[in-house]
Amino acid sequence: MNKKVYYFGEGSKADVDLLGGKGANLNEMTRLKIPVPPGFTITTEVCNEYLENRHRWPKGLDDAVKKNLETLEKTIGKTFGDKENPLLVSVRSGAKISMPGMMDTVLNLGLNDETVQGLIAASGNERFGWDAYRRFIQMFSNVVLGMDMEPFNEILEESSDDLRAVVKAYKEHVLYRLGKPFPESPEKQLKMAINAVFDSWNTPRAISYRTIHHIDHDLGTAVTVQAMVFGNMGETSGTGVAFTRNPSTGERKFYGEFLMNAQGEDVVAGIRTPDSIEKLEQIMPAAYTQLVGIYKKLEKHYKDMQDIEFTIENSQLYMLQTRRGKRTAKASVRMAVEMVGEGLIDKKTALKRLDAAQLDQLLHPSLAPNHDKPVIAKGLPASPGAASGKVVFDSKEAAEKGKSGESVILVRKETSPDDIEGMHSAKGILTATGGMTSHAAVVARGMNKCCISGCGDIVVNPKAKKFVTHDGKEIHEGDIITLDGTTGEVILGEVPTIKSDIDENFETLLSWADEHAKLVVRANADTPKDAQVAFKFGAQGIGLCRTEHMFFESSRIPVMQEMILASSKEERVKALDKLEVMQTEDFRGIFETMNGNPCTVRLLDPPLHEFLPHKQADIEKLAAKAGMTYEKLKDIIVAMTEVNPMLGHRGCRLMITYPEITEMQTRAIINAACDLVEKKVEVHPEIMIPLVGTLEEFMLISKDINRVALGILAERKVGLQYKVGTMIEIPRACLRAKAIAKKADFFSFGTNDLTQMTFGYSRDDAGKFISDYMEAGILKKDPFVSIDVKGVGELVKMCVHEGRKSAPKLKVGVCGEHGGDPDSINFFHGVGLNYVSCSPYRVPIARIAAAQANLT
Amino acid sequence: MNKKVYYFGEGSKADVDLLGGKGANLNEMTRLKIPVPPGFTITTEVCNEYLENRHRWPKGLDDAVKKNLETLEKTIGKTFGDKENPLLVSVRSGAKISMPGMMDTVLNLGLNDETVQGLIAASGNERFGWDAYRRFIQMFSNVVLGMDMEPFNEILEESSDDLRAVVKAYKEHVLYRLGKPFPESPEKQLKMAINAVFDSWNTPRAISYRTIHHIDHDLGTAVTVQAMVFGNMGETSGTGVAFTRNPSTGERKFYGEFLMNAQGEDVVAGIRTPDSIEKLEQIMPAAYTQLVGIYKKLEKHYKDMQDIEFTIENSQLYMLQTRRGKRTAKASVRMAVEMVGEGLIDKKTALKRLDAAQLDQLLHPSLAPNHDKPVIAKGLPASPGAASGKVVFDSKEAAEKGKSGESVILVRKETSPDDIEGMHSAKGILTATGGMTSHAAVVARGMNKCCISGCGDIVVNPKAKKFVTHDGKEIHEGDIITLDGTTGEVILGEVPTIKSDIDENFETLLSWADEHAKLVVRANADTPKDAQVAFKFGAQGIGLCRTEHMFFESSRIPVMQEMILASSKEERVKALDKLEVMQTEDFRGIFETMNGNPCTVRLLDPPLHEFLPHKQADIEKLAAKAGMTYEKLKDIIVAMTEVNPMLGHRGCRLMITYPEITEMQTRAIINAACDLVEKKVEVHPEIMIPLVGTLEEFMLISKDINRVALGILAERKVGLQYKVGTMIEIPRACLRAKAIAKKADFFSFGTNDLTQMTFGYSRDDAGKFISDYMEAGILKKDPFVSIDVKGVGELVKMCVHEGRKSAPKLKVGVCGEHGGDPDSINFFHGVGLNYVSCSPYRVPIARIAAAQANLT
Repeated sequence: MNKKVYYFGEGSKADVDLLGGKGANLNEMTRLKIPVPPGFTITTEVCNEYLENRHRWPKGLDDAVKKNLETLEKTIGKTFGDKENPLLVSVRSGAKISMPGMMDTVLNLGLNDETVQGLIAASGNERFGWDAYRRFIQMFSNVVLGMDMEPFNEILEESSDDLRAVVKAYKEHVLYRLGKPFPESPEKQLKMAINAVFDSWNTPRAISYRTIHHIDHDLGTAVTVQAMVFGNMGETSGTGVAFTRNPSTGERKFYGEFLMNAQGEDVVAGIRTPDSIEKLEQIMPAAYTQLVGIYKKLEKHYKDMQDIEFTIENSQLYMLQTRRGKRTAKASVRMAVEMVGEGLIDKKTALKRLDAAQLDQLLHPSLAPNHDKPVIAKGLPASPGAASGKVVFDSKEAAEKGKSGESVILVRKETSPDDIEGMHSAKGILTATGGMTSHAAVVARGMNKCCISGCGDIVVNPKAKKFVTHDGKEIHEGDIITLDGTTGEVILGEVPTIKSDIDENFETLLSWADEHAKLVVRANADTPKDAQVAFKFGAQGIGLCRTEHMFFESSRIPVMQEMILASSKEERVKALDKLEVMQTEDFRGIFETMNGNPCTVRLLDPPLHEFLPHKQADIEKLAAKAGMTYEKLKDIIVAMTEVNPMLGHRGCRLMITYPEITEMQTRAIINAACDLVEKKVEVHPEIMIPLVGTLEEFMLISKDINRVALGILAERKVGLQYKVGTMIEIPRACLRAKAIAKKADFFSFGTNDLTQMTFGYSRDDAGKFISDYMEAGILKKDPFVSIDVKGVGELVKMCVHEGRKSAPKLKVGVCGEHGGDPDSINFFHGVGLNYVSCSPYRVPIARIAAAQANLT
Repeated sequence: MNKKVYYFGEGSKADVDLLGGKGANLNEMTRLKIPVPPGFTITTEVCNEYLENRHRWPKGLDDAVKKNLETLEKTIGKTFGDKENPLLVSVRSGAKISMPGMMDTVLNLGLNDETVQGLIAASGNERFGWDAYRRFIQMFSNVVLGMDMEPFNEILEESSDDLRAVVKAYKEHVLYRLGKPFPESPEKQLKMAINAVFDSWNTPRAISYRTIHHIDHDLGTAVTVQAMVFGNMGETSGTGVAFTRNPSTGERKFYGEFLMNAQGEDVVAGIRTPDSIEKLEQIMPAAYTQLVGIYKKLEKHYKDMQDIEFTIENSQLYMLQTRRGKRTAKASVRMAVEMVGEGLIDKKTALKRLDAAQLDQLLHPSLAPNHDKPVIAKGLPASPGAASGKVVFDSKEAAEKGKSGESVILVRKETSPDDIEGMHSAKGILTATGGMTSHAAVVARGMNKCCISGCGDIVVNPKAKKFVTHDGKEIHEGDIITLDGTTGEVILGEVPTIKSDIDENFETLLSWADEHAKLVVRANADTPKDAQVAFKFGAQGIGLCRTEHMFFESSRIPVMQEMILASSKEERVKALDKLEVMQTEDFRGIFETMNGNPCTVRLLDPPLHEFLPHKQADIEKLAAKAGMTYEKLKDIIVAMTEVNPMLGHRGCRLMITYPEITEMQTRAIINAACDLVEKKVEVHPEIMIPLVGTLEEFMLISKDINRVALGILAERKVGLQYKVGTMIEIPRACLRAKAIAKKADFFSFGTNDLTQMTFGYSRDDAGKFISDYMEAGILKKDPFVSIDVKGVGELVKMCVHEGRKSAPKLKVGVCGEHGGDPDSINFFHGVGLNYVSCSPYRVPIARIAAAQANLT
């Protein structure tokens, strides 16, 4: 068995797997000779062995803990359980990845009826001693013994003047509730606390958190035992948290909050609203100067923005934690660019460090300016963005409503890890207390979710299901409010949102990304307007232009219906002629916008019955227009209805039945392109056949396309390079890739449909069970959001491999939703695709993700 | 270039690819010194080169034909185009596989206004000479010049007494219709006829025939040019066709038909109804004795029943063809067994020779005895079986109605290759003329379709859309009749049909098959009654017991509905308890019937909404019973409706949502098995989880199953071996086979669903385009009938391969419709499956196919 316990300084930041983030960084800071209260860390390996071994300590752990405790006693000159000058410790959990779902901390451990007297004697402060003791009992009872906090708070409120009486009442309460006295032995307290940390790895809350955040369940947690220092020893003591740069804006300015005469938990829990860090300079200039020196050293050492915790005990500064600081997308971009400017990091590091998924925030909605809805309160702008929804006061309810598709805003006095699921489902979070570093703020930023914290303007009454603003306005459950996470404003009613734009820093990063990416990023755009957005966001082409979206427009659907209801080929061709004029115009607009970048146009895909009405009134109207009886049209519609339209008569199957549709679309594409060539505009149309499952389909249809296209080019005497390729969205197409690749100019994966068919999930119906599946851990991620690497991915890989066997230079892309998902992009890069195509607003993220994929 | 032309005797029966069946066998007979009119065969390679080379003769063909023609002239002592003693030839097509879709024959080629005089002189029979000439013009005009037959027949009827005038009128008609005179040059006639044979390979009719019969389109046809002999030279001449054994019953008795003073076409075309072959013995005993000697020699040489054609010219016997005789399934079985008994072939040959698909005939419906419907006519029992349907007189109409799912009986005076499609779509065929070897009879037997030919009792009037029986009864289009292909009876109205049984010969063959097969054959059986049939047909277990079929019974569906509409888990469990009693009883019956053979039970598969009513009256009734309003129940039903139920909440997805259903079914299976074990009956239940797509699903559900099962076994103290395995029907399951195989006891391919998802075809909807696909040649075979080897088969192969990587002894079977299809069985054998499972009535065929797969 490996080393079980590391005394601070024996490990380093490289040992994060073994010591957890917290432990590794405490070890690192000790090495850097930064003042850290001494302590030791029990490894994650020990935790896993304990959990596997029926919750028994592995051999040798007892001795190792004892030995390290002795070293700690010697270092600090105090003795654990000593009546006169007792050593008190904190016990903290700390996994490789920070996890609010776990037990966090027990402070002041080692206190009992005897050692409290020693603490009072040593500190010369009786109230402090009893306060430390009652805090310890309360915390230990809650996190180790699993008791409810509320009764303790009630006892405290009843007799807060006599803390000794509070301690007595606490202990009686514990005895009454558990039938066992509160443990007096410090050794027993320590062992129980360590076990509680181990056990907290597998609480439902922790498991749920890991599932949501895709964290492996077998990492385990480390346990750090550290000598206590007290920020609540009086007016020369205090505690605070700070960021080496502004985590919200990215500004290079020390940024934080502190509370004098308080323990660290007071800041994080948001019970009292803290002071800004600048104020510390006035109150304790020496400590402040020392803190500034340390933060600069840390940032230089870690080459990244740090989130630090410190405590000042009787004017003496101690660092309790340092870690990579969480940040908004905006801040992450600014910091990355500025740190390159400062020479702290290089461009590659800047790119690799970005959380591509989080960058979505930058393109997230903000409120429409000049709205006339009333601002009813203002809080801290804890996480940017904007959101509207119905007020909900309970996290479970938020989770339920959110899952059923309702937009809700979760309103809480403050949040705790129990609220994770509700926060996840809510569109936005509003809390009455807590600062920018409170639980609500930190978690919301991590979730990339709009949040206003510390909104002292409101009083939350969850029992009455309402909150009251400072001027007496009552907002009840179900009322709609809007949050502006960028300004901290709470607005009554729904305010329209607008997409935000890309700032200069982001532009800089995007240009670096393009330098380092191998994958080209295109956009899915169906109209000239979409194409403009895509082009502005840097799309290097259109990967998917869905022609049917054009037909659904209100001016066009009647012509489409005319075509479908045509009783002869002649009538159908007449309707198609009308559509051709419209389509040619569309394509001209799109090709012109994309200005020489390739544009992939997918031929008509959906089943024709999608274009017919289903409501009686609409059917009557159309019947009258088409000159047939309601019954006749109704019969036609019923006859066209399919049991499984997803697997029905659509895509290229329509082209086999109605080659005249293919011919019309080909004419529109090629004529539009010719028009531009004649105007000296460069244009590269790529015609894509959807839903191909057999080589024979592709050959038949591409023959039709080429006949029509070459005819036009010959007639118009225009030189034009066009391509004819296929979507790969039917599993069979992957299995026949080698043959199809011999004939097709390109492949483009339609991973939406490919996922539907490979899993046998209908996206329209899977909602009914897919959340059950996520909860049961059957699916780690929604396969429609992030590509299923083991299944669908296997097919994709096989298809590329086989296709390139017969056409080594085959151009392969992806045009499903996955084309904008960073994890999926990483996979597509690895498989060797040439491009991804995603919705215009995802293009910037895809560009970053494409670079990251090439840098790992 | 290889040898282009083979003079008879230069080739042999081994050259069938090159010389076609007809040519190869004429060469072989020449080698055997059997009297064959001399001739030569142009190879299929020449045909393909001609077709590829813009219908031009390859270099050297001209010379080769000329050289062989000279040899022929020398052999026979006549000269082509000679005015005095002209050589006349027949020109026949002949592909590797016999194809009614091609040009068949031109007889009497070489006649013109001059040579006809020579023929008259040589034969001393003027009428014969002119008859030969007019026949030649008519045949040549039809098959080479592509003219309609009808006008020629009209001319003939008008002046049949003066055949010379007929010839004149024929030639005038040709000149009038084509604007060109009928070709007089024998060399030109020969070249045109040869080209017509080549070209006939690619007529739409031929292509359609090949598509229906899955014959490669690039085989090409050979052309045989042979000296004419005449069966119509007078009363010592004749022509006939015969089988060396009875092709309908298999009886070892020479069987055939002949016509005196007739050409061969007269027998085949069914214009005159011929005499039985036995009569020949009386009329021309010497020729008959010679014929018997030859047929015996041929059967011994070919070791198979032969279909022969002969002509007697002036008492001189000539063989014109020998080939493997087509036969009914019943006959094929009897012959195979008897030939083994005679020592002619061994068991393996007997098995390999069977057409497994055709054997279905033996299990085909026959008429219920003692029916009271009137027999209105009687014809020849040309192809066994029985069928009812609406009378149709036109093949196109038959094809259309048949495709749309109507049962039709095609009624024709006689059939021709133009009728192929209609015959294919009809349930049965009735012809007024033609014998047991007429086109209708031969083709119907090949198609395994009930047929009555030569029904002289009826007069067919296709224009008036009716036929009239001998006693004046009129049957109109749309009337329902029933054919008994075994007795030749035509019955008015619909007669119920019953499945026929397996005879002793078939039993013998099946026992041989089991000796030679590697694949085990199981049956799909859902009830004890199905299981009995399966067991009787030799199923070695049940591969698929669909438990939902039990729930659809009228006595059970209310309980199922109670379960689905339960408002709490308790209510649901109460309904499930009731179902459990029923299911336990079912399983007991099935397990007991199968008597120790393994039984695979699939847990509930269909979406629950399938069990709820959809008609208003039914919904109202159920609502009243369930104590809810109509609206409420309607809402529930609508909410449960799925857009794509095929890809929805069903199969194991239900088990994740409602584990109590799985638990109930497991209890029923295990308790039923325990009951039998306690009665000392051997039982091997295999529990199968449907629709698994992820390892995690399988693990979660199998854990539930094992918990319940082991609990019962412990409680009842019964020793029972059971297995838990999975269906493989989701493409993803194939891709994850290696992982799933580690946990599952067996795999069973559900190739129906696997085909649906791999192709993206819904079986319920694909009917709308799948026939377009077959016609366009996109699909060679319906992938739901015969497994798609290149696509779905690739997945199957991969799955078996990967699964056996982690579990080398993994038991793998198939339980989709493909389990009873011989071609698919051959594939499954090759892939290394352990068993196939099919519907009980397909079990015998599957047993034969399994043996054949192992013998090739």
